[in-house]
Amino acid sequence: MASKDNKLKARLPRGLADRTAAEIRATERMVATIRGVYERYGFEPVETPLIEYTDALGKFLPDEDRPNEGVFSFQDEDEQWLSLRYDLTAPLARYVAENFQDLPRPYRSYRAGWVFRNEKPGPGRFRQFMQFDADTVGASSPAADAEMCMMAADALEALGIPRGQYVIKVNSRKVLDGVMEAVGLSGEAHVDRRLTVMRSIDKLDRLGFDGVGLLLGVLGRLDQSGDHTPGAGLSPEAVETILSFLRPVWGATEERPNTGRPWGDMASVDDGRLLDNYGTLLHWQSVVGGTETGHDALDQLRSIISYCEASGYGSRRIRIDSSVVRGLEYYTGAVFEAELLFEIPNEKGQPVVFGSVGGGGRYDGLIGRFRGEDCPATGFSIGVSRLQAALTALGKLDGSDEAGPVVVLVMDRERTGDYQKMVSTLRNAGISAEMYLGDSGMKAQMKYADRRKAPLAVIQGSLEKEKGVVQIKDLDLGKKLSEKLADNAAWRTERPGQFEVPEADLVAAVKQMVAQRDG
Amino acid sequence: MASKDNKLKARLPRGLADRTAAEIRATERMVATIRGVYERYGFEPVETPLIEYTDALGKFLPDEDRPNEGVFSFQDEDEQWLSLRYDLTAPLARYVAENFQDLPRPYRSYRAGWVFRNEKPGPGRFRQFMQFDADTVGASSPAADAEMCMMAADALEALGIPRGQYVIKVNSRKVLDGVMEAVGLSGEAHVDRRLTVMRSIDKLDRLGFDGVGLLLGVLGRLDQSGDHTPGAGLSPEAVETILSFLRPVWGATEERPNTGRPWGDMASVDDGRLLDNYGTLLHWQSVVGGTETGHDALDQLRSIISYCEASGYGSRRIRIDSSVVRGLEYYTGAVFEAELLFEIPNEKGQPVVFGSVGGGGRYDGLIGRFRGEDCPATGFSIGVSRLQAALTALGKLDGSDEAGPVVVLVMDRERTGDYQKMVSTLRNAGISAEMYLGDSGMKAQMKYADRRKAPLAVIQGSLEKEKGVVQIKDLDLGKKLSEKLADNAAWRTERPGQFEVPEADLVAAVKQMVAQRDG
Repeated sequence: MASKDNKLKARLPRGLADRTAAEIRATERMVATIRGVYERYGFEPVETPLIEYTDALGKFLPDEDRPNEGVFSFQDEDEQWLSLRYDLTAPLARYVAENFQDLPRPYRSYRAGWVFRNEKPGPGRFRQFMQFDADTVGASSPAADAEMCMMAADALEALGIPRGQYVIKVNSRKVLDGVMEAVGLSGEAHVDRRLTVMRSIDKLDRLGFDGVGLLLGVLGRLDQSGDHTPGAGLSPEAVETILSFLRPVWGATEERPNTGRPWGDMASVDDGRLLDNYGTLLHWQSVVGGTETGHDALDQLRSIISYCEASGYGSRRIRIDSSVVRGLEYYTGAVFEAELLFEIPNEKGQPVVFGSVGGGGRYDGLIGRFRGEDCPATGFSIGVSRLQAALTALGKLDGSDEAGPVVVLVMDRERTGDYQKMVSTLRNAGISAEMYLGDSGMKAQMKYADRRKAPLAVIQGSLEKEKGVVQIKDLDLGKKLSEKLADNAAWRTERPGQFEVPEADLVAAVKQMVAQRDG
Repeated sequence: MASKDNKLKARLPRGLADRTAAEIRATERMVATIRGVYERYGFEPVETPLIEYTDALGKFLPDEDRPNEGVFSFQDEDEQWLSLRYDLTAPLARYVAENFQDLPRPYRSYRAGWVFRNEKPGPGRFRQFMQFDADTVGASSPAADAEMCMMAADALEALGIPRGQYVIKVNSRKVLDGVMEAVGLSGEAHVDRRLTVMRSIDKLDRLGFDGVGLLLGVLGRLDQSGDHTPGAGLSPEAVETILSFLRPVWGATEERPNTGRPWGDMASVDDGRLLDNYGTLLHWQSVVGGTETGHDALDQLRSIISYCEASGYGSRRIRIDSSVVRGLEYYTGAVFEAELLFEIPNEKGQPVVFGSVGGGGRYDGLIGRFRGEDCPATGFSIGVSRLQAALTALGKLDGSDEAGPVVVLVMDRERTGDYQKMVSTLRNAGISAEMYLGDSGMKAQMKYADRRKAPLAVIQGSLEKEKGVVQIKDLDLGKKLSEKLADNAAWRTERPGQFEVPEADLVAAVKQMVAQRDG
């Protein structure tokens, strides 16, 4: 079958990655920690398959310009269109609708799983990645939204991210609707323009207030390459209303958190202090309080904030922030975003704020697609791979130090059965152990044991066999002692870090030596 | 968005399944147990993505009649053909070939993951299912095969399957090649006929020896519906050689295990005793020992058996068996199959032997497709979903009894903040707790708590609030006591299973009551 000339290239499609032992163990620890927090909140696991009917997933990808393109789709043997899920929310909506009568309501559930995007991968942008979602279905109360925010904060802290190094940002789609109403863009007639405005707002991070102002106005914006983006055509007053809503408002109650956001024209007030949540709500009242939608939305935000405060989660941990828009079209109310505030070096070595590791919001219409009537639901999704990168950068997830198994060397191939028996004896005593399975000699076997991070090697040549003993070599200790030895001859005589024990004492001696290392 | 008339049907494609909390927890416990055994053998985790280049997966599906059809394939944005993996072996081969220089060799690894088959699903036949694989790459020694068998046996016992209720069956593709050589079917010219013969042998379970004999001979076989399957056209002597190889051989050393196999014409010797492994090897020597292929293959089998025996794994646990053929075309040497011997009721309520829960073998050519030279490799794959069904039938995996969270009732919606605070206090003390998030009254809330398997409900109405106390209700105790009460009036006065404590003692009281229940 094998031929040098006609061989296949072993390669993985871009945007897909293999996972090593250290990465797998780190993910497992992370997921277990998050699960622990979520179960303490009364959430229980439920999982759906990775494949769904394409129509059941809907067209809710973040990039609404190419509704179906971002998904991996294929036909099954019956020629029905199936897709790999692109998030965990759409499948959950299908699950809840399908099992509506059998579920407790409100229904709190969580799940971790792989999701897929059929897009051009880039740095840190994968086509398969893991999300960890929690959802509450059947509760319209803002208390359900507040719970999501508090649970996200608890999860980040349980993972070792210190308070003050993260913030859960909260906004409301309905407040944004109120802003639209305030500038005369409500109603069906303005769907397209609202979308243009939303997308402009979503670029605040990159373009700053001046840039977004240009995009909202009549002129539009010229970028550095000379490309012109047409403006949304709003009047100067309307542009100012929106920018006023977007601007963080400074007050006397709290210091400005280090959000790393390019505040643009706000730089001059950098020495000021941000208002707390109630201050922001008061300011927003002046912008959108006059509209019906805005007024109701502020009421809901106020409830979310008050439930968080009642549980001791203040404005530094859970914070109202106008910059949270969230791309997914299915959000209908509160939207959340979890941001990490510490800096890590980017590819060029420059410090950048880590940024978003998850988000979510209220999606009261998604289950309704199946049921024919709206069903309240709210959820939060953690980007596991991204959060794992953050925790690794913080040094909170080091799984690389784990000791390998004890390696039993094969000194005499004819006696493989004897070595096999030794290794079984060790395993039966609960000790992780393996016999060397290759064809190489003593030196290569020791190198292999080293490579495997073996704490000990067990050696029995013919001399030891005759005497009924085994040699146990402490590999680290041996290495340390070797450095002090004059030459190879001395090494062979002194056998550094090596101890001879009767065959019958093998297990006891290995246990003792492992315990000494670990202690 | 929602409309009763135009709603989407919430349904899952056939052959795909949602997983409940109890199932997820059972799988997790199972996988953790297997992982523990494998790590004791010195195996370490490595995982590959669910998508690979279609050509990297190759055409090695069990059903070799439809090589590409059984796979879900699709094109990415660059129009390259990708497929969902159909097993974990082909991706591992790609991984090892891609990282050949960086891996320790021999390289032992394990992984659990979802695999996909694009076929018509049937009862117990899924299009997405989980496998748990272990592989050793770079070791041609039969000790590597022996290790796979012992590890499989250990895993089954660690999961609670008693010794004697399972068997790891071993055969060798090369012994089968020797049989082919012995009946004159070796060489390139007979590829097709060998395949026909192999498929006939694979039907032994269903057709018995007489049926297989007909399929091997000149006449072929008529089934009950009158359909005729043409025969392979072997001479009566050749048919007898193959049947003689296939027949279990009785001797004085061991009782016949309850394999549930339809022995067909062997029924008359049912009172005999099966030979042990060495006896079987002796018998096979007489059938294929004269051929070169057969002779070498028997040497390898003998080594596997001797290494197992050296570690204390005898013929009842790891057993040479001619019936193991394994469908995958990539096997090149030893093949294994793990069978559960106990009976469970089938759909009609009749007892049937549970049968295979995993298998594997040596695949020395698979990595060579990428490297241009053969690379020895052997592996074992557990069908997790199938094994889980077996363990559930045995009562070894009951995860349904887990207690739910403490439920804090909402007696007065205006005071949601107070209840929110209570529930936070409980969680901060490490107690799983939730606040009722729906709109319903007291009675529905109690029903909900019951549904959630809550051990306790925490209740604070306005009277209790005034007194600075809370009521804690033990739901099970309450139910038991209620049964003895005369009427509703008595229930309201006596409040069965309900205890009043000062607000400040909430955590301590809940902890004590939970401990009493669990104790």
